[in-house]
Amino acid sequence: MLSINQVKYLNSLRMGKFRDANRVFIAEGIKLVEDLLNSHFRIQVIYGTPSWIDSHQRLIASQEHVIQEITPEELKKISSLVTPNEVLAVVSYPEVPDISQEAMGNIILMLDRIQDPGNLGTIIRTADWFGIRYIFCSPDTVDVYNPKVVQATMGSIFRVNVTYKYIKLLLGDLDKTWKIYGTLAGGENIYNAELEFPAAILIGNESQGIAEEYFPLLTHRIGIPSFSAGAESLNASVAAGIVMSEFSRRLSVVGRQSSVSSQK
Amino acid sequence: MLSINQVKYLNSLRMGKFRDANRVFIAEGIKLVEDLLNSHFRIQVIYGTPSWIDSHQRLIASQEHVIQEITPEELKKISSLVTPNEVLAVVSYPEVPDISQEAMGNIILMLDRIQDPGNLGTIIRTADWFGIRYIFCSPDTVDVYNPKVVQATMGSIFRVNVTYKYIKLLLGDLDKTWKIYGTLAGGENIYNAELEFPAAILIGNESQGIAEEYFPLLTHRIGIPSFSAGAESLNASVAAGIVMSEFSRRLSVVGRQSSVSSQK
Repeated sequence: MLSINQVKYLNSLRMGKFRDANRVFIAEGIKLVEDLLNSHFRIQVIYGTPSWIDSHQRLIASQEHVIQEITPEELKKISSLVTPNEVLAVVSYPEVPDISQEAMGNIILMLDRIQDPGNLGTIIRTADWFGIRYIFCSPDTVDVYNPKVVQATMGSIFRVNVTYKYIKLLLGDLDKTWKIYGTLAGGENIYNAELEFPAAILIGNESQGIAEEYFPLLTHRIGIPSFSAGAESLNASVAAGIVMSEFSRRLSVVGRQSSVSSQK
Repeated sequence: MLSINQVKYLNSLRMGKFRDANRVFIAEGIKLVEDLLNSHFRIQVIYGTPSWIDSHQRLIASQEHVIQEITPEELKKISSLVTPNEVLAVVSYPEVPDISQEAMGNIILMLDRIQDPGNLGTIIRTADWFGIRYIFCSPDTVDVYNPKVVQATMGSIFRVNVTYKYIKLLLGDLDKTWKIYGTLAGGENIYNAELEFPAAILIGNESQGIAEEYFPLLTHRIGIPSFSAGAESLNASVAAGIVMSEFSRRLSVVGRQSSVSSQK
């Protein structure tokens, strides 16, 4: 049974200020909660319907103390999905991740003021696909714990470290072996450019691109060549995906394991 | 002045059955209507605010007979945007395009049951960027004239031919020089696969991928390699973007003009 106060509290977590105050966020649906249970994220509580609990006995065996059974009607009251999907979890914000060179690997992503929740979620999902483990967001990027972002990651939020940090501070912290790539109009054709690793890739705001203040910090400017008479830009998450794909392709030339799969 | 009947009619066009009955769709906002005016699409009427009309005198010089001035308050009544943006146009469905080999060029796209309006719009925008001029959608793909699709194309809907056709019929019509590529789990690593032209690329439904009935028609199966322990798939429009990018890159190796730009 959910109390009125619990329903109020859970609904308040749709707003960033209440999430920040409690340092928790919400993840909904079968796929996301499965990925959560397979992650190191700390779970405060999982609200599941009887049918979800029945069919996930093995997965929740070690987490029974956080499971609370609710009815589908109760789920409706606390869900932000149009079609609530059997389970909703309250998850603690993760710890600030280790940003040593070893932990970060060969490619990291930096986002300058991405505004659309769907774009941020999709970028996290794509980064996960390509094995990119660290994303640094400028403080004025949309909140990664916004429910729309969380859902758009399709569970990748539990596998990619997403941190808010002033890009300039981050770049100051990186050692000098890192190459800093920015995607810019007039940048060198990414297909022909020499790409070096470790690579930190900066992706700009949907309508304004990368802020000029970062230009002096870039060691390379790259762009995706266009063959159109009229198109002015690509969608930010598509552009980020193409850039990640090209860096990943180059990296695999120097040898890296992969399993071939595809968009479904 | 808009009559009550005009407002009713324009709002009815949010629904596919009324668009089909009248063979018109709506395009909103400054960027889309500019791209419309620079296209060959037949315009039935453009509703513009005085400020829009004032600042677009040159562009509308030859189209004055279709311009109707309305107030910002009237625009609000007929707009489907959260923030209506100065101008709204009613546009005729285009003619069925010429599908000769010459017209279609080196790459065409085929979509099998793409359901999300944002995905379809973004795929059209990306196709435009890479100079792909023809997209064929299975009849159960989301309607390209759905207002959310039109807006997500960012004007590319006026530069790319989008046609609904049974994919099997289309493949039957193509001559034998076309290679038919499908993006599939377990397909050959697209970075290493030999890509040949002219290429017809089939992209599948967001959750189910390509329908099995098409498998025997594919001459090649390709996939985007993953480096993730947990990600199961890419977003459909990102996957389509990466595939278009890779085909475009290979095509430019054999020589094709481009202008380098980037996502902004």
